[in-house]
Order: sequence, then C-alpha cells, then structure tokens
Amino acid sequence: MITPESTSPYTARQARLAQSLRTFSLQALALNPGPSLTYFTGMQFHLMERPVVAIFPSRGIPALILPELEAAKTQDLPYLLHAFSYPEDPRAWHHAFEKALQGAGLAPQARIGVEPRRLRVLELRFLEGAAPQASFVSAEEVLASLRSIKDAHEVAAMRVAVRMAQDALLAALNNFRVGMTEKELASELTMQLLLHGSESELPFAPIVSAGPNSANPHASPSERGIQPGDLLVIDWGATYRGYVSDLTRTFAIGQVEPEMQYIAQVVAEANAAGRAAARPQVSAGEVDLAARQVIEAAGYGPYFVHRTGHGLGLEGHEEPYIRSDNEEPLLPGMTFTVEPGIYLPGRNGVRIEDNVVITATGAETLSDLPRELRVLGPS
Amino acid sequence: MITPESTSPYTARQARLAQSLRTFSLQALALNPGPSLTYFTGMQFHLMERPVVAIFPSRGIPALILPELEAAKTQDLPYLLHAFSYPEDPRAWHHAFEKALQGAGLAPQARIGVEPRRLRVLELRFLEGAAPQASFVSAEEVLASLRSIKDAHEVAAMRVAVRMAQDALLAALNNFRVGMTEKELASELTMQLLLHGSESELPFAPIVSAGPNSANPHASPSERGIQPGDLLVIDWGATYRGYVSDLTRTFAIGQVEPEMQYIAQVVAEANAAGRAAARPQVSAGEVDLAARQVIEAAGYGPYFVHRTGHGLGLEGHEEPYIRSDNEEPLLPGMTFTVEPGIYLPGRNGVRIEDNVVITATGAETLSDLPRELRVLGPS
Repeated sequence: MITPESTSPYTARQARLAQSLRTFSLQALALNPGPSLTYFTGMQFHLMERPVVAIFPSRGIPALILPELEAAKTQDLPYLLHAFSYPEDPRAWHHAFEKALQGAGLAPQARIGVEPRRLRVLELRFLEGAAPQASFVSAEEVLASLRSIKDAHEVAAMRVAVRMAQDALLAALNNFRVGMTEKELASELTMQLLLHGSESELPFAPIVSAGPNSANPHASPSERGIQPGDLLVIDWGATYRGYVSDLTRTFAIGQVEPEMQYIAQVVAEANAAGRAAARPQVSAGEVDLAARQVIEAAGYGPYFVHRTGHGLGLEGHEEPYIRSDNEEPLLPGMTFTVEPGIYLPGRNGVRIEDNVVITATGAETLSDLPRELRVLGPS
Repeated sequence: MITPESTSPYTARQARLAQSLRTFSLQALALNPGPSLTYFTGMQFHLMERPVVAIFPSRGIPALILPELEAAKTQDLPYLLHAFSYPEDPRAWHHAFEKALQGAGLAPQARIGVEPRRLRVLELRFLEGAAPQASFVSAEEVLASLRSIKDAHEVAAMRVAVRMAQDALLAALNNFRVGMTEKELASELTMQLLLHGSESELPFAPIVSAGPNSANPHASPSERGIQPGDLLVIDWGATYRGYVSDLTRTFAIGQVEPEMQYIAQVVAEANAAGRAAARPQVSAGEVDLAARQVIEAAGYGPYFVHRTGHGLGLEGHEEPYIRSDNEEPLLPGMTFTVEPGIYLPGRNGVRIEDNVVITATGAETLSDLPRELRVLGPS
C-alpha cells in the first residue's frame, strides 16, 4: 500500500509555501521552469521560447500556464491544479496569462513573488501584461527558507550523487595519461559520470584545468595537453533524482615545484578548518573565515579570490552562500560546499571542495575522497 | 601568418550590430551570458547568481560588467572592451552597472534592446537601477536578422555536429537490447555523442521515448523497458564549436500494429514534402503547410500537435520558426529543422526530423540517416 505522503510530498510543500507567502505578505508566487517549480509540483519542463509559468496563490489552487503540446503533463497529478494552455500562435499566449491571473483571485495591486535569477523578461512581460498594477518582487528569501533545509530523503539523494561522482572520478583517472588534453579528460569524466548512474543533465560540465589554466577558478577545459609539472584541478558533480553533488580535487602531474606542494597542503588545511567550523547556529561567514584564515596565515590571502562555498541541492548554487559577510546561521539540514583555493596567475591553482550537511550537533562531510596531493604519472 | 579576419570575426560582427541598432533606433543592446554574447564577443560565461552583462552601444566601445573572479577572461581580447568588475559582496554590484551605463554615454531615456528569452529579472533590475529612465525593449528582431544567416564557417560546423550525432546514434543502436529502459538508452546515446566528439554541453539531453511515452512530443526518458510492439522515438543532437544539430528518428521494436507502420510512412512523406518546399523566398509558413498537408490528407491532422520546425545554430531553438503563420521569407544561409510528427495518445508516436540549410537555389539536407521505419530486435 502506498501512503499519500510517499506518493506526493508536493501537497505538503505547497501548503508550506502558501503559509510562507502569507508570512512575507506576498499574494502569490510565479515560477517558470526550474528547480523551484519541480520542488513544488514534481513537474519538469524545458526552458524554451514558449513560456511556462506556475502561479501559487497564498490561498487557493495553483494555476499553470503552458503550451497545448505540454498539456498532457498535467494529467494524473496527485494535487489540484488549474491548467491554462495556449496554442502555437504567440499572439494568443497573453490570453492564457490573463485567465490564469484572473482565476487566482488576486487583488489588482498584488505583490507577486518571483525568482530574479530564473524568471526571464519573456515571462515577466506576460505577467505584467496580465496584472498591470501588480508588483513583482524577489521571493528568494521565501524559497531559500523552504528549500535550504533538506529532509532525510533529499540528503539521501545527495549522498548518492556524491558517491556516483567519486566513483566516476576514480574510473576516469584510471584512463588518464600524461599528454591528454583537458578536454579529453573532461569528456572521459563526463562519460564515467553517466556510466556510474548520474542523470544526463549534469549539474555542470566538468572543469578540468591544468598548469596556467588551473590558476583561473572558472576555467573551461582547453586543448592543451596536461604536462609534467602541472597541478591538475578537477571540479565535477553528478545528479541523482534532481539532486547534485559538486566536488573538486587537485592532483600533481609527476614532479611539481615545492611551492605547489605547499599550497596544496595549505588548501587542504583550509578545507578541513572550514568543515570543522560548520555546525548549527554558527554563521555561514564564520565557516568562510575559518578557511580563509588558514590561507591568510600562510601568506596566500590575496590568491584566494572567491568565497569558501555555496549551498547545493536541486541547484548547483543555492542558499546558503558561504561568504565572509553572510551572518545567516547554519541550521540542521542545510547542505553546502566548502571549497577554498589558491590561484597563482600564470602558474598553477589548487582547489579542494567537499559537500557538507549540517546535523543536529555538527556537520557531516558527504564526500571522502583523499585530499592530499596525489601524483598522477609519469610512472 | 594569421590574418585579422581569421583571428577575430567579432569586430565585424560588432560593427554590423551597431549598424543594425541604429537602423532599429536602439541606443544599445544589453546581453547576459548565452549564444548572442558568444556570437559578438567569443566569450563564454556560466549563467549564475552573479550577473554578467555586456552593453553594446550603437556608437562606441562595448562594456562588460562581470565578477572580479572572471576578469581574466577580458585579457588579450582581439577588440576593444571596457571591463567593469565587481567584488563578491552583492551590495557593491550596482556600482559596476552604474559606471558601465554612464561610460556608454547613452541618453537618459535611451531605448536599450534586450533578449526577453535570455535576460533574467536579476540583470533587468540592475540595468533599470542604473538607467531608471531608459526603456528595455525586445531586440529579438535585430539579433535574428544578424544570427539567422549563417556563413560558410557556421554551416561547416553544423555539418560536423550532424555527422557526430548520426554516428553516435548508430553506435548506440549497436548496443540496444529489447527491455532496456528509455533512460538506459538515453545514457548510452549521451556517452556515444561524447565519444564521437560532441562538446560536453549538448544542445539538450536526448529524448528516448517508446510506446505510450512516444505519444508525448516532449517526453522525458522513463524507467519503462522498451518492448516489442513499441514505436521508439529518439530525438538527439551534438555540439561542435558551439553549433548544434537536432535530429529525430523513429524505430519499430519487433512487430508493430499496421497503423503504426502507416503513420511512420505518412510522417516520412510529410518530412520529405517539407524539405522539398524549402528554398529562397518561400515563407517559413509554406514549409510548415507542405508537411502538414500530407498528414492532414492522411486523416491525422489533429495528431500533428506542433509546428514543423525551428531554426538552429548556436541555439537549439532560434529563428526562423517553421510555423504556418510565419510569413518570413527563407533566405540563403538560414538553417532549421523539419520535424513533422503524429502522436496517438496512449498508444505511440512518430517524429522524423532533419536539419536543412537554404542554398542559393534550394535547400540542402545536412542529415542523411535513413527515414523508413527500421525494425530493432527481437531478432
């Protein structure tokens, strides 16, 4: 027998959302396709030239505006939903928005929450057209408060995503040869992620960067061959049931300069210090500072050019952001990365990234690949 | 020796853009990360919680607003660009937008073009804050007129993306076994795409749908095993130098009902009719109608629930849209899909999709995998 709870967490999530909208004096939330829409509805849509928007009123039944050719997705949902579908001709699309907004029974000057990092001008203009006196304001705080605390099912999915990523990296390294290009190793790692069970929508394309390219924290894999003397930074993740992992390890190719060995050790210590600082009621900023102080004490402060980490879950980057100025207290169920780095321009970079969940009394690190500088070839 | 043209097509593209902005009475174009930004600058950025915006004035030097940790990407560019970088603290980000807009020398009430399908509320609000009297209007027409006509280099890249996709499908089908789930076959195909040289950012995750799921044109691969009697629809593509392919073929698993064989034949004829209608000065709508009439004549008109195709290039969906009401004339260099389908709810679906380029006198189909209904297992 299937219990209602196990068939659908969505009714409960929608109820918590409605409650939270009322707390924040928002009359509705408007979402386009993405993790939040999936979190509240279980539905997945491609983000395309045809707008798809869900309206969650603070009281009443949600509405979904979508193309006719996607209307089949609203059948057999385990909760109530009013669907407003539109035909292919874009000149008819605004009708569906108008009907949906009217049906939601909002006051003309309603405050409607949106996701500024997700909603596009495309959807905003249709919403503004259908509710010309409404104001569209950021609902990030509402969504972060709901989505940042993961339940046991969500953490279990992230644990699987971490294991898949770790196993995939070890398999890819088995096929590593000195002289391979960054792109070749990135493709090999992508294949191994899929072979190890990751969903095909990876959280991001793996970053494989070596030597000078590794000194750029957001490098793209290049055609340069990975050479002896390089540090090799690999930043990668897997997806399981929509939940992601996001890890980084750094390797030495053959013999590297003593300074490179030293900065790898400093970053490993900073990573450990950041993870050790994480526990309930400690602020996100304190975790950043714990990692940052290790790097500053070693004299490399100016070369740690980014924050220590970011939340992750249904998204690769979400709340809480592990930034020195973030006074938000960490709470049990929050999941995030700890990823300090040192980047020496034109030479090499190091980053070591783990995924952490706050527990009742401290923090558990979900990832356990060794963090010391492993040497890869030449044998 | 490297000629200026071969090192950078970007200066010429920016000059054509400035000309086009003046024609459309726009004082600037604001772009966030995506294909258009790459087209004009050659730069690639992740779309993240940190805004990145390029401002192209109709006269003068472009500006780029970006996080400090990405600032290295603006070094050694083969064209002039003013970079405005901002630190980690979000409270400081608006300064960079204000300086960039001031530096662009726009009138207070400037009309600034944006991409409604790409620009997010995040970037829009920063732009509105920095230019409170400006109006932000769709520049889709400007961008489509520039990007929809591909040059020989662009078509050559798409030809490679088509070949990679075709070779990958044949390799994946070699590993197909009856009973495999849709997800398993989708993962296998994704791996083969990478093995055959596709960039790891695929145009979209392959759609593998069989039996009842194939009757949903935008299905996601499920855990259902692919069974004798099913039609199997595979919709997939590869990426080469940023340019994409987008193909669909339909297969029969063992013996299928005679009606399924019939609709597969009707769709193949509709596909051929659509491709045959494509040539310069014919409208996009006429191509749609040519394909649609074949399906309507066979009595399946109500089961062809989408347009016949869409443009493709740096994006999987772009201008021209092959829709019955689109009177836009096709021009040499335009590239698009022809992908009619028939979907019988609860039973099976068929779609056959090719990629076409308009030539001086007609159209060339870039894809050449057989279109007749091939039977896969059981042997």
